[in-house]
Amino acid sequence: MEKGNDHETKEITEIPKNITIRSVLGLLMAKTDGDEKKKVISLGIGDPTAYSCFRTTDAAKQVVADSLVSGKYNGYPPAVGLPRTREAIADYLSRDIPYKVSANDVYITAGCTQAIEIVLTILARPGANILLPRPGFSIYSLCADFRNLEIRYYDLLPEKGWEVDLSAVENLANENTVGLVVINPGNPCANVYSHQHLEKIAQTAKRLQTVVVADEVYGHLAFGENPFVPMAAFSSLVPVLTLGSLSKRWLVPGWRLGWFVINDPNAIFVNPKFMEHIRNYCDICRGPATFIQAAVPAIIEQTTETFYQKTISMLKQTSNLCYEKIKEIPWLICPCKPQGAMFLMVKLNLPQLEDISDDLDFCFKLAKEESVIILPGVAVGMRNWVRITFAVEPSSLEEALARVKCFCLNHTKQENGHTPSID
Amino acid sequence: MEKGNDHETKEITEIPKNITIRSVLGLLMAKTDGDEKKKVISLGIGDPTAYSCFRTTDAAKQVVADSLVSGKYNGYPPAVGLPRTREAIADYLSRDIPYKVSANDVYITAGCTQAIEIVLTILARPGANILLPRPGFSIYSLCADFRNLEIRYYDLLPEKGWEVDLSAVENLANENTVGLVVINPGNPCANVYSHQHLEKIAQTAKRLQTVVVADEVYGHLAFGENPFVPMAAFSSLVPVLTLGSLSKRWLVPGWRLGWFVINDPNAIFVNPKFMEHIRNYCDICRGPATFIQAAVPAIIEQTTETFYQKTISMLKQTSNLCYEKIKEIPWLICPCKPQGAMFLMVKLNLPQLEDISDDLDFCFKLAKEESVIILPGVAVGMRNWVRITFAVEPSSLEEALARVKCFCLNHTKQENGHTPSID
Repeated sequence: MEKGNDHETKEITEIPKNITIRSVLGLLMAKTDGDEKKKVISLGIGDPTAYSCFRTTDAAKQVVADSLVSGKYNGYPPAVGLPRTREAIADYLSRDIPYKVSANDVYITAGCTQAIEIVLTILARPGANILLPRPGFSIYSLCADFRNLEIRYYDLLPEKGWEVDLSAVENLANENTVGLVVINPGNPCANVYSHQHLEKIAQTAKRLQTVVVADEVYGHLAFGENPFVPMAAFSSLVPVLTLGSLSKRWLVPGWRLGWFVINDPNAIFVNPKFMEHIRNYCDICRGPATFIQAAVPAIIEQTTETFYQKTISMLKQTSNLCYEKIKEIPWLICPCKPQGAMFLMVKLNLPQLEDISDDLDFCFKLAKEESVIILPGVAVGMRNWVRITFAVEPSSLEEALARVKCFCLNHTKQENGHTPSID
Repeated sequence: MEKGNDHETKEITEIPKNITIRSVLGLLMAKTDGDEKKKVISLGIGDPTAYSCFRTTDAAKQVVADSLVSGKYNGYPPAVGLPRTREAIADYLSRDIPYKVSANDVYITAGCTQAIEIVLTILARPGANILLPRPGFSIYSLCADFRNLEIRYYDLLPEKGWEVDLSAVENLANENTVGLVVINPGNPCANVYSHQHLEKIAQTAKRLQTVVVADEVYGHLAFGENPFVPMAAFSSLVPVLTLGSLSKRWLVPGWRLGWFVINDPNAIFVNPKFMEHIRNYCDICRGPATFIQAAVPAIIEQTTETFYQKTISMLKQTSNLCYEKIKEIPWLICPCKPQGAMFLMVKLNLPQLEDISDDLDFCFKLAKEESVIILPGVAVGMRNWVRITFAVEPSSLEEALARVKCFCLNHTKQENGHTPSID
């Protein structure tokens, strides 16, 4: 990988406003229509629930079904969540940090997406800006746009295992910065930050007097060197708004059960007026279905370590498979071995590929020719990269990557003097 | 009821911004603490699910449970809703209007509350205003405030069965008016508008070139003279955004399954850019749980006319009971017999009541002295009125209203020359 090239691919200004992951994937899916020879394989989104190796527990389904059939939870939930649900999430999160989270600091939301929406809305004020990672998760940009929150992107550094570029953060922040968003374990980079790096992030945020918005929707899905450390472990330094959900660890994104938590033991950030503002906003949002909320304590209690370990070990296996197979594909470069979550970022060596103008073009042609869906990097803020999910059962993943390899070989420029062989 | 008095009670400027129905009811509930002699009875919100006479069908619960346990619907739903759910709602709504609603015009939301939030957000633009009914539903005001949408209240007219004051609407609207919100069947007034009145509303909106936001969350819950007529019946005149949910007709507000529908057969309102804007916004909202969405076709198909009729007949009975009992309470005036939905508005004859300064004071003292919760009118835009739900099982309703009577007798001014007797 040449230095010049590396720099060039990062020279993008922002995620185009009208591109959402869903809309791009929808367009790509449409391209595959008509090819009946090859089954479409999507490595597009982080939703592995279609595969039998990524199924939630029967116990979790059963407690939700019992809660529903009991008929006790058909009424409205409180706007901030059922007390028992808030309590259960507070206890769950307290396991991994040096202090006890209060149930009153937990707000139950319709998935992590609604947690993002609420947090960005309550942070927004005229003239405010928010610091977002690049590459990142497009819902943040979309949401910030809708709330008139100025976006300032800081880079994640592939050469440093996708760590936060802290000097960029320092340069971007000013007195109107209302939050620093950190996604760990990372979407789309598969990073899991060390205790030391997280502490540095917290210290930087403290210096800049801004809260950290810690997106931990992939919390605990770590399978590399670093264990998962919640950002709230540093909330004695700086206020941390932690976002999470059942979606990923329990493999139920469709249940739409998430949360945000105000970790602010020194009461730097919170005040009564602000808390009222949050409660009022929750009133127009409401959370997930009451009977799902009511089942959360039992879901957490009844989930075994074996289930968690099975998912981790599956993701470790598929991430390795993905990483190794990509290494074998000409003109694709994956700078870091995945450490967590469900995606990795891959750089395209475009000068070596014929008839491919950019990442969008790569993905559209791949969809059309090989019926494989992957996400163009532009949708997560990095032109001429692509995002690939490895949360897919191994044989489908292997088949999809074999097709990507075939595609790259078919599109290799002839003037390189040779056509790389299939093996 | 004296004319002067009537006028006086309507002279309020707006719903105080920080008052939400939930927060007021929470404060009232706190007032009842400590009185262990009387069981607290709430006539505060439209959620009758606690009472056995207002339970959803076993069939509905079973199809949702089956959908959950199948494990097929744990993945993300499409942002605008599952195709089969959109189709089922389109078919359901098409039953009552002279044209076929397209599934593409249906957006599935997390309850009607999210439908309100999305619709107000997509209508908002700098300088825009929206016309809201007074009395009304406070989520509209709260939401409009959060979206910087100027609120202009038009009155509902108690002397005309709570019809829309159309001349007020004409006076309030200008070129920046983006919507006219009409709630029918009515919350909080129990109105069900005639075909003729709805047509006049549509004609007025057409003249003003604004869309009608038709909140029909209480759709079909009509038990008076007028049958329920959907506003979409007039969408050949004017674009109608219809809002609804399973919450009320199926008695499952906690399932958080709602929708909004763009009824615009003449394509006056919609354009490709606007549709993209809606889809993008849905992307940051997401809808209800996938497995609940997936069950909707079967819920609609399997719900019998008997179930619908049972609810209607129960509401007719409790609304009559409520209306008749209020007539017997000194210093309370209910101007109109309830025709639909779950609430009625009652005027307080304050000059006759001792130690009661206003509706808030009335409700706080009632909560403290009698452990009965009713909503101060100020929370729905009418000072010195109260909102009472009759969607309560008859014996609790009777007991609560007996306590209200007792309260009013206890607070009757002595200078009236007599103390009204209990019977």
